[in-house]
Amino acid sequence: MCYQLSSCAFIPRAISVQLSTNQTSFKSDRAQRVDHLTKIPRSVNMESLQNGYLFPEIFMRECLYAKRNPHARLIRLGIGDTTEPIPDIITSAMAKQALALSTAQGYKGYGPEQGNRELKRAIAETFYQDMQVKENEIFVSDGAQCDISRVQMLLDDSLSIAVQDPTFPAYIDSSIIVGRGGRFKAESGKYKKIVYMKCGAENNFFPNLSTTPRTDLIFFCSPNNPTGSAASQQQLKQLVEFAKANGSIIIYDAAYAAYISDESPRSIFEIPGAKEVAIEISSFSKFAGFTGVRLGWTVVPEELLYANGYPMIKDYDRIVCTCFNGASNIVQAGGLACLTPQGFQALKRTMRYYMENAKILVDTFKSVGLKVYGGKNGPYVWVQFPGLSSWQVFDQILERAAIVTVPGTGFGPAGEGYIRLSAFGHRECVLEASRRLTKLL
Amino acid sequence: MCYQLSSCAFIPRAISVQLSTNQTSFKSDRAQRVDHLTKIPRSVNMESLQNGYLFPEIFMRECLYAKRNPHARLIRLGIGDTTEPIPDIITSAMAKQALALSTAQGYKGYGPEQGNRELKRAIAETFYQDMQVKENEIFVSDGAQCDISRVQMLLDDSLSIAVQDPTFPAYIDSSIIVGRGGRFKAESGKYKKIVYMKCGAENNFFPNLSTTPRTDLIFFCSPNNPTGSAASQQQLKQLVEFAKANGSIIIYDAAYAAYISDESPRSIFEIPGAKEVAIEISSFSKFAGFTGVRLGWTVVPEELLYANGYPMIKDYDRIVCTCFNGASNIVQAGGLACLTPQGFQALKRTMRYYMENAKILVDTFKSVGLKVYGGKNGPYVWVQFPGLSSWQVFDQILERAAIVTVPGTGFGPAGEGYIRLSAFGHRECVLEASRRLTKLL
Repeated sequence: MCYQLSSCAFIPRAISVQLSTNQTSFKSDRAQRVDHLTKIPRSVNMESLQNGYLFPEIFMRECLYAKRNPHARLIRLGIGDTTEPIPDIITSAMAKQALALSTAQGYKGYGPEQGNRELKRAIAETFYQDMQVKENEIFVSDGAQCDISRVQMLLDDSLSIAVQDPTFPAYIDSSIIVGRGGRFKAESGKYKKIVYMKCGAENNFFPNLSTTPRTDLIFFCSPNNPTGSAASQQQLKQLVEFAKANGSIIIYDAAYAAYISDESPRSIFEIPGAKEVAIEISSFSKFAGFTGVRLGWTVVPEELLYANGYPMIKDYDRIVCTCFNGASNIVQAGGLACLTPQGFQALKRTMRYYMENAKILVDTFKSVGLKVYGGKNGPYVWVQFPGLSSWQVFDQILERAAIVTVPGTGFGPAGEGYIRLSAFGHRECVLEASRRLTKLL
Repeated sequence: MCYQLSSCAFIPRAISVQLSTNQTSFKSDRAQRVDHLTKIPRSVNMESLQNGYLFPEIFMRECLYAKRNPHARLIRLGIGDTTEPIPDIITSAMAKQALALSTAQGYKGYGPEQGNRELKRAIAETFYQDMQVKENEIFVSDGAQCDISRVQMLLDDSLSIAVQDPTFPAYIDSSIIVGRGGRFKAESGKYKKIVYMKCGAENNFFPNLSTTPRTDLIFFCSPNNPTGSAASQQQLKQLVEFAKANGSIIIYDAAYAAYISDESPRSIFEIPGAKEVAIEISSFSKFAGFTGVRLGWTVVPEELLYANGYPMIKDYDRIVCTCFNGASNIVQAGGLACLTPQGFQALKRTMRYYMENAKILVDTFKSVGLKVYGGKNGPYVWVQFPGLSSWQVFDQILERAAIVTVPGTGFGPAGEGYIRLSAFGHRECVLEASRRLTKLL
């Protein structure tokens, strides 16, 4: 069940596209037929956007491997996609809501674009108790990735940005799409106008803010994808103070917050004063296995003000109403069920399961003497291989253990020498991966 | 059931926001507390965007009316929101898909961002037979309004645009948000850089292209919201030729195409050569009562090329993968059920029902000698009241018949003197509205 004999029969998400945006294939297409050209120039932003070299490259190597080894039992611990069933109580609520739409009493058309009130209240009570986050500051959405782009649309294109290095690539890619990143410099692997805040083992996965230049926006993901590390209360306090002193905004991605097992804050709003400097984006995807169901939310505090004193929440509200039309009412019913005591307990069991996977992987690498990070507060395991490039490690593990990982450089230049493994997977796959890795390493 | 005694208890979509974005209330908020200002300037685009004066104004007038007339049985034929239950066969498919997510066999995580293959195939077969629209040119989404903004993100901010006047406001609003419309001129009710193509009874609801200046983008909605009129084959042929001669792109909104009852094209791609000049956006919202369920799609043809020959589909694919993450898998299962022979037949019955409503409204206005348009190929009725302003008509109908309509000016300056009525509603409401209108007019 967990193995895929023909890995290339299914093209994982984001890969088919990126393969198709390959410049070479475009040029050969172009030679074939040009009946009519519009006079529309290609957007300079889209032109600046680098091809997502990472996932197509992973996929191509995987395909080549599968071709050479048609009977290999490939284990995929690359893309962070949930694998375990959603608890009944949640899917039953969605089924019930779907069926209600066939009744005169239960049919509903447009809901509020900002989300159903009960769900917003449940989110506020579950995730923001004692943080003074109000219902009207919560905007329910179809997922965190979509919200990242909506926040980008909200803000002026000329703003400067900083990101953690390594980090989830969507912050950079969506910044480039709205014209905020400048040109890509192949030699450094960086976009010219973006500040890359190095977050590695040497600085406890938190940037050295005393040497970080001021930017308008700071994207910060905690627990971090790919390193799995969560920033501490003290670190986030520093970050909020830094943003406040600079007049910057933190765009805080808490998509993995439910996996935190220690005292690390689960929301930036645990930090006093954060409501004046931060937007928080979060998601049901990894918390509830909703990757394909699609539900998330964004908190824009009333206290967050532009330089002229205008509240950002009002513009975000306008963006949500103009460019979005609310999350599906069926899915929102599922979200509400996630936040009932029974739903929440059931989800905790699933998250525990994934974190046990993470522990198996962490222990595996530790047992062979490697330095391994993450896996405690986030479902990712980040392993250092001194003296080897990320791609060399990726290749060796693929070739010799038939396991797909992600090379660390896919998340930024500081990921060099690392690989990321996802703890989302069936237990038997993770155990088999552990056996193979122990044998290999 | 169809009447709402306290109309103000429920704030209709888009209204709560627009009320809250009211400048006056902002200023008074601001005086109260300013603890910290960021140094982030408010986006000039958001500053250019006019407050959606229409719906808040409608809502306020409605509230005042309800306050003065607490026992009035208000009938809302304003906002075009579906009211009739979704056929069982469709909601059962969604319920089944939801429940399957609780099983090991049926659980699915991320799907392709572009939509499930079976659904794309069904859309191609149902709506684009004989038009050479391929599966890979169809991008399934969470709705047409969201897709309008995704298309905006795709294209360079400097492009010039044209819209029908009157038309659905989201084309203009999303253009302003990405910086494409220029400043608003209160005296004309128009944005400076937007070309308003007048489409009224005098020109058969189709612009005079011989006097229309060239623009890069042409937003075209057919059947049109609010006029309910569908462009003919001949008219669309002219439009495609116009775009081709100018090197422009048509962004064609076909959200109401399923309501067309005559020979008018249901897709721009019925016109030869349209694939080289048009993107088509469509929706399950009005066709299947999915306004709250959320499902739509956009067709970006492979033949549509930038001036440099680069295929637009590749950039759109990248936008969809970076800024969107696919429509809900549960909802997509419902979409697929809509396109089965039984699902489609059942939906046709619901659409017939709404169009019977439209006929009742059309006949009502005709019977009192008014000029009335639409209601034949689209679920909107567009009524002219010579010598009166849209707001005067709105007020009279609200005050004297307790019916909420939409003043035509909400859709553009050329809507002056008209009101729009939505044919979405329960039959008894529409019949009661007809009785009241006949008495009033």
